[in-house]
Amino acid sequence: MDDTREMADPLPYALFGDRGAGGMLLVCEHASNFVPSRYVGLASDRKLLAAHVAWDPGALRVARHLSQFADAPLVAGTVSRLVYDCNRPPEAPDAIPEKSEQFVIRGNLELSEVERRRRARAVHDPFHGQVANMIAISPVAPVLITIHSFTPIYNGHPRQVEIGVLHDTDARLADAMLAVASNHTNRVVARNEPYRPEDGVTYTLRRHGVSRGLLNVMIEIRNDLLSDPDACRRMAGILAGWLGDATKTLTENGAHT
Amino acid sequence: MDDTREMADPLPYALFGDRGAGGMLLVCEHASNFVPSRYVGLASDRKLLAAHVAWDPGALRVARHLSQFADAPLVAGTVSRLVYDCNRPPEAPDAIPEKSEQFVIRGNLELSEVERRRRARAVHDPFHGQVANMIAISPVAPVLITIHSFTPIYNGHPRQVEIGVLHDTDARLADAMLAVASNHTNRVVARNEPYRPEDGVTYTLRRHGVSRGLLNVMIEIRNDLLSDPDACRRMAGILAGWLGDATKTLTENGAHT
Repeated sequence: MDDTREMADPLPYALFGDRGAGGMLLVCEHASNFVPSRYVGLASDRKLLAAHVAWDPGALRVARHLSQFADAPLVAGTVSRLVYDCNRPPEAPDAIPEKSEQFVIRGNLELSEVERRRRARAVHDPFHGQVANMIAISPVAPVLITIHSFTPIYNGHPRQVEIGVLHDTDARLADAMLAVASNHTNRVVARNEPYRPEDGVTYTLRRHGVSRGLLNVMIEIRNDLLSDPDACRRMAGILAGWLGDATKTLTENGAHT
Repeated sequence: MDDTREMADPLPYALFGDRGAGGMLLVCEHASNFVPSRYVGLASDRKLLAAHVAWDPGALRVARHLSQFADAPLVAGTVSRLVYDCNRPPEAPDAIPEKSEQFVIRGNLELSEVERRRRARAVHDPFHGQVANMIAISPVAPVLITIHSFTPIYNGHPRQVEIGVLHDTDARLADAMLAVASNHTNRVVARNEPYRPEDGVTYTLRRHGVSRGLLNVMIEIRNDLLSDPDACRRMAGILAGWLGDATKTLTENGAHT
């Protein structure tokens, strides 16, 4: 028990809804704030673990309900992004964050290149391998949806946007969603907010969606809208109808590859 | 979206730590308070979902760390026991609880036999099928450990016990643990508390452990000892050393089948 640094890493993903007749694949990179035993130094600050820097509160619950509403498989991360942020490539400096807002993440300061590569192999590689596997075994080219949540106040500034619809170079699905947004929600909806592709947040979309020509979008939900289980379920119901509507438009127009 | 009652059920388990060189299998029946979309009526009471009636708070985190410390696979429930209690056989009246302490669970009142059987097929059968599969593919006969938590106050009465060591007719591992308890923890440890086999809590042990002659034990931890992630990790470290010690004694005595 003494040298927890020598512990192995756990499998960094869990699979929900393995059937998936819906032609959709869900990914929730920041589903968990679990810090595996070997990274004991990262887990000592209770406030840090509860905060958005460690995970996206509410995102897994939305994604699990959406998985059911849309009959879509879901790949969810099971390791905190304090250890490795699965929505970042290994070469990104913030793949293993050293700070977030006012927090300095001391367990991540001055890591060796060997340790950075080790974490990428332990967390990033199996996670994205599993996403790729799910696409490979899908009976039809799936629509790729990633589910995230964001904090209502960031660096002291309140955020007005409630639901962000984010995309990289392939904006087909985001455009279609934004065009029909008002039919599905009265929330404040915005394109590429509160983050933009330049912030490096479209890694999963690019790696698995854009590269294969799959319709894809990243959904960001302000986490004060996900403060209880029923709110998460209702948000998933809205997203299911909205995504279904937008995808149908594209399929009818022949844009769905 | 209108008729969520027609939603399919999600897979009722997740698998953590799939390798398992440690000769141990962990089960956490009450790991999640997630209520699938089709049971919308069960999810309307936020207080109910947060309470022990819906899940065992902290148990999954302890089990995940223990899975790492002991290099043991873990089968964890992903559906609230409000829907179906995976530590009960389908014929048990409280497999689908109608009340718990002061709570009446209205969505479970006056269920038809058809609905009861449907929930058992959707939740109980795949969950216990997966536990059986894990035993079948284990390279050695595994030691079966189930991890639970309990509420410090029950029906208004404070509970003094802090860690319960529970068993059914096969007490070998529980006896060995109790014999060395004081070497591993200063907590108040008790045999078959706060529940006894007569309360129906040893279903998983009997079904998978006693029936096959596997060493087995159920651990119950008072959930005020699991109030933050680091406390869960520390408890898992204690259990890993304690279980290892007790199992070693038995193996040396030739009692490990």
